[in-house]
Order: sequence, then C-alpha cells, then structure tokens
Amino acid sequence: MANYSADPLDRAFAALSDPTRRAMLARLEQDAALTVSDLARPLPIKLPTVLKHLDVLSDAGLVRREKQGRTVTVSLTPDPLKAATEWLHRYERFWNASLGRLTEVAEAREAQAQAGNRDRAKDDDA
Amino acid sequence: MANYSADPLDRAFAALSDPTRRAMLARLEQDAALTVSDLARPLPIKLPTVLKHLDVLSDAGLVRREKQGRTVTVSLTPDPLKAATEWLHRYERFWNASLGRLTEVAEAREAQAQAGNRDRAKDDDA
Repeated sequence: MANYSADPLDRAFAALSDPTRRAMLARLEQDAALTVSDLARPLPIKLPTVLKHLDVLSDAGLVRREKQGRTVTVSLTPDPLKAATEWLHRYERFWNASLGRLTEVAEAREAQAQAGNRDRAKDDDA
Repeated sequence: MANYSADPLDRAFAALSDPTRRAMLARLEQDAALTVSDLARPLPIKLPTVLKHLDVLSDAGLVRREKQGRTVTVSLTPDPLKAATEWLHRYERFWNASLGRLTEVAEAREAQAQAGNRDRAKDDDA
C-alpha cells in the first residue's frame, strides 16, 4: 500500500492513487480538523484499515496527526498537494490544446512517418 | 509497478508516482510525438524497463502508442492528466489559505479540544 520512495512527489502521487485516501482528503478539505473516529465513521472499512491509510497519507506529508489529550485529530498539510498540482499544471497547456495544436500534432506525426519512410528507403538502397 | 485498479484516477495517480514516468510525460509534453527509442535515449535505464514504464502509462491512459511502419510513436493523451488536475484543484482553496483561514483552523481545533475535555469530564462523572 505504501510507497517508500524518498521523493516527496512519488509519495504524494502514490498516496493519491487510492479512492479511500482521496475520500479522506476530501473530507479534511471540508472540515479543517477531524478526530480519527469522525474521519473513520462514514467509511465502509474497519478502523485498522483506516489507520493504515492514515499512515500512508501521513508518510506522504499530506496530513498531520496531533494528539490532544486522549483524542488524535487529523488535518491536511498543503505542501505535497501543492507540489503535485504544480507538477500537473504544465500539462494544462496541452489539454487546452486548440484544434490548431491538434493539427500540429498530426502534422508532426505525418512528417515523422515520412522521414521514417525515407530512412527505410535509404536502408533498403544501402 | 502497475496499479490494476479499475478507477481511472487510481491508475493515473499510481502512474504519476514514479520519477521516470514523470520524466517521460514531461518530454512528451515538449515533443508532441516521439519514437520509443527517442524517448528512451536520455533515460539512464535499459529499453525493457522503458517499455514497462510505457505499459503503465498506457494502461493509465496517459499515453497512446501508434505503429507507423516499423516505428512506434508515443504521444500524450490529456484526459487522465486533466482528471487528476481537476481532482487536485479543490485543494487550491486550502493551500491559498489566508492567515484568517489558519486562525479558523486553530480555533476549530481549540473548540474541538475543549469539547473533548467536556465529554471526558462527563464520562468521568458517569
């Protein structure tokens, strides 16, 4: 379940690859701080599993756990989510591609295919 | 290495959790379509490993491979990156938190801690 990479982005993306963990983060975005039992209540899984998911989120730096008396509260820590989003932002240009860009992609492929055909023709000649 | 979840977001985030795969996506964002060997050239890993990473990216729907004659070209497919970014966008509000928001978080924690103390006092009385 966990990803023990030293790279914070590796760990953030690995932590985000599970729907239960994403649901936990989504709830923590709505409620600034929740106790572990509040966080576990709506989830269709047992507490030990919730705690394992919390370990993964915590190892990835996505959440912080704080003990206050007998209660452990969990809250979001934004830096890894911010880093992950910033990494993805560079692709916005790509998927906001206009028809012009798509044409450009198609043309590049076509040119590459023709260059490939020329290379092969040369190889065949050799 | 791969994540066989049926959930497209699970697979996208799992695919993004590796620095080699992120480097491959970053290159494909610069060059609309690359041959597998062009993509592999700058990477400090052997071709079979590159092909395994490409399988993970392809299974996650992040790239498309097309055979043109004897050449396989790889290009980005934006939908899963878009879905991943949209999922993360909801947290922007959180990390753009003003000092006011941080105060609110601190106050919520304080209130929760006090409620916890009251509950415990009641439990002790019972």
